[in-house]
Amino acid sequence: MSTLVGAAIFGQSGGPTSVINASAYGVIRTALDNPNITKVYGAEHGIKGVLADRLFDMGQEDAHELELLKNTPSSALGSCRYKMADPDVDDTDYKRILEIFKKYNVRYFFYNGGNDSMDTCNKISKYMQKVGYACRVMGVPKTIDNDLFGTDHCPGFASAAKYIATSCMEVYQDARVYDTGMVCVIEIMGRHAGWLAGAAGLATEYGAGPDLIYLPETDFDMEQFLSDVERIYKEKGNCMVAVSEGIHYADGTFVSEAKTSATDGFGHAQLGGLAALLADAVKQRTGAKVRGIELSLLQRCGAHLASRTDIEESVMSGQAAVENAVEGITDKMVGFERSYENGKYICKTKLIDLADVANTEKKVPREWINQAGNGIEKPFIDYVLPLIQGEPVLPRQDSLPRFAKLKKVLAK
Amino acid sequence: MSTLVGAAIFGQSGGPTSVINASAYGVIRTALDNPNITKVYGAEHGIKGVLADRLFDMGQEDAHELELLKNTPSSALGSCRYKMADPDVDDTDYKRILEIFKKYNVRYFFYNGGNDSMDTCNKISKYMQKVGYACRVMGVPKTIDNDLFGTDHCPGFASAAKYIATSCMEVYQDARVYDTGMVCVIEIMGRHAGWLAGAAGLATEYGAGPDLIYLPETDFDMEQFLSDVERIYKEKGNCMVAVSEGIHYADGTFVSEAKTSATDGFGHAQLGGLAALLADAVKQRTGAKVRGIELSLLQRCGAHLASRTDIEESVMSGQAAVENAVEGITDKMVGFERSYENGKYICKTKLIDLADVANTEKKVPREWINQAGNGIEKPFIDYVLPLIQGEPVLPRQDSLPRFAKLKKVLAK
Repeated sequence: MSTLVGAAIFGQSGGPTSVINASAYGVIRTALDNPNITKVYGAEHGIKGVLADRLFDMGQEDAHELELLKNTPSSALGSCRYKMADPDVDDTDYKRILEIFKKYNVRYFFYNGGNDSMDTCNKISKYMQKVGYACRVMGVPKTIDNDLFGTDHCPGFASAAKYIATSCMEVYQDARVYDTGMVCVIEIMGRHAGWLAGAAGLATEYGAGPDLIYLPETDFDMEQFLSDVERIYKEKGNCMVAVSEGIHYADGTFVSEAKTSATDGFGHAQLGGLAALLADAVKQRTGAKVRGIELSLLQRCGAHLASRTDIEESVMSGQAAVENAVEGITDKMVGFERSYENGKYICKTKLIDLADVANTEKKVPREWINQAGNGIEKPFIDYVLPLIQGEPVLPRQDSLPRFAKLKKVLAK
Repeated sequence: MSTLVGAAIFGQSGGPTSVINASAYGVIRTALDNPNITKVYGAEHGIKGVLADRLFDMGQEDAHELELLKNTPSSALGSCRYKMADPDVDDTDYKRILEIFKKYNVRYFFYNGGNDSMDTCNKISKYMQKVGYACRVMGVPKTIDNDLFGTDHCPGFASAAKYIATSCMEVYQDARVYDTGMVCVIEIMGRHAGWLAGAAGLATEYGAGPDLIYLPETDFDMEQFLSDVERIYKEKGNCMVAVSEGIHYADGTFVSEAKTSATDGFGHAQLGGLAALLADAVKQRTGAKVRGIELSLLQRCGAHLASRTDIEESVMSGQAAVENAVEGITDKMVGFERSYENGKYICKTKLIDLADVANTEKKVPREWINQAGNGIEKPFIDYVLPLIQGEPVLPRQDSLPRFAKLKKVLAK
């Protein structure tokens, strides 16, 4: 182990989740407690905060408020979607980051995000190596989409999956109270991978969920969809459908973007999104009462329905990033490895090369989706079920959530 | 007290709530345990099940499953929206109901619903009196809309209010993570009364909620709305808006139904509903990134976020209906009376004439809404806060909800 003493920067990037702040807590708490780390800075809006010299001194935060981060959804420090240039083409940003690193004697950089964020991490790390600036760079995984390469699963996915499954079970009860029947279409996040839409299948497994589930891993066919719905509606008098926002036709066009004659032949923008579009198409085909429901932001910030397993693993991933970096590791993302002991799910951290994880997407295996492409198979359930276990102990004030209140004192 | 021995029918009517089954539990459990009630029947799809002779024998249900009703959202027996004719014009339905009542020796009729359901109750009661059939008829209140006359509040409202406030607090965290800003419009149920939309103000009171709230109790002005949003967006870089689905222009036209040039000048049906429509109008005016979120069915079936106070009061209202009927009372709806003892909220049941409650709507007092008509005042918060207190103890299986499974054995 080579000792490296200096400050650390932590940043959050990409779309927020219910537990990204739990990872933040893991990084910040562990870093504050480590003698080799002299200062812990939180970057405002991820790498943009580094470029803008907007760093919060996390040592000034109240310990209890930091702990509340474990149950505070979304990115408490602010996030960004910022694509770093190729440093061989334009190294302006990298020079600026080096300048800031030197200014604050930053020797540790922890970045919490998805594929793009790991790409950012990787580029910064390689640049620092090239210019000979000693700095350890570690990625902390985050994405409700669960599409990061090299890890069994991603922090944030399970809590969103649990929110989706629970909400589907509740809506299932509601959407069949009348004897007149209804077709209900639920739109779920996941542009390129169907992990979240597939999680709606948990509701079905537990007796109250979608009859049909469409993932972006297979091509969508409107005619087949309408005939699937029609068949079930005729059989049961009701039909519940879960669709990933990323479903697309065989030619790659997103269904949400395509103009169909069933919806708006004049090519006007569809204000209502995919759920409304499909519900309308079903209505025109079957005459059924329809309801399109978009889970929207709710599914990624529903911390009150988080998985305790997810929270604990998120904290663990942040902690592992710091501990490994202090031990001398750099250029890695923390990932998860699953095992079973006497049937009990065990999750341990592992390390994955940043270069491998950057910009690669992990999709749902085709064999976990049924032959017809309108449902999931048992291995999917077996995969996701252990991840959603356990209820969070929620800090509340007057029965409403009590989220972390950070002081956000700017570093000089 | 005049003793009346015979069977009881219980039915659920109108839109479901998170706790309507808790009221069902209160009625069914109390009735099953009462020696004067010989049989307890659950009507399938409310009064329609009576007309169709579709009655479930509740005595055959497992006691534990009945208890699970307290945390099972939506109408477990099925609901209906069925308007009874004026018996002086057409008494077909009433004759049929009398026939069924005689067939099963029904002497108690409990009906759980909102204004229309109380109208049904009232008409049946008056008809039975007219034809001299001894039967006690009691209404059990239910509506997330909280618009029933004569009662301090309605079972179902508080749980929906808590779902709305919690969700707004979570979305608030999510909707401001980027430095680019966003305007978020959240559409909330409540066609004629703004109780639910107003409940979003709880989130604001607790530090993370809508900047603007529009209720149907005041006239909506699109120009004023856009300038409100623009002002706040310019000031804060973000803006969160809660709107009741029932907001309307001064001429009474629902905003959701009006075609504005900002949305679709060709008069096509708006698939996406009000939130999408307003978000689009804001986008055109301000250029801001926008997001319209419709809480849809989620807000009325989110039993995992129910108020324990609401659950307990719902059970109590069902119990009170049975106990009062057995004592000789008829023709009443159970309502709630609020008092405070040493600052502690107390809720007791009271009885209201069915004739008074049928078809009357209780709106949010104008003085509980701010002068500008874009927010609520402190008395609204003081009113709603005690109602949402307490967390439910949720029956779960593998961290997913375990809802009641009724056998629904048809009576012969």
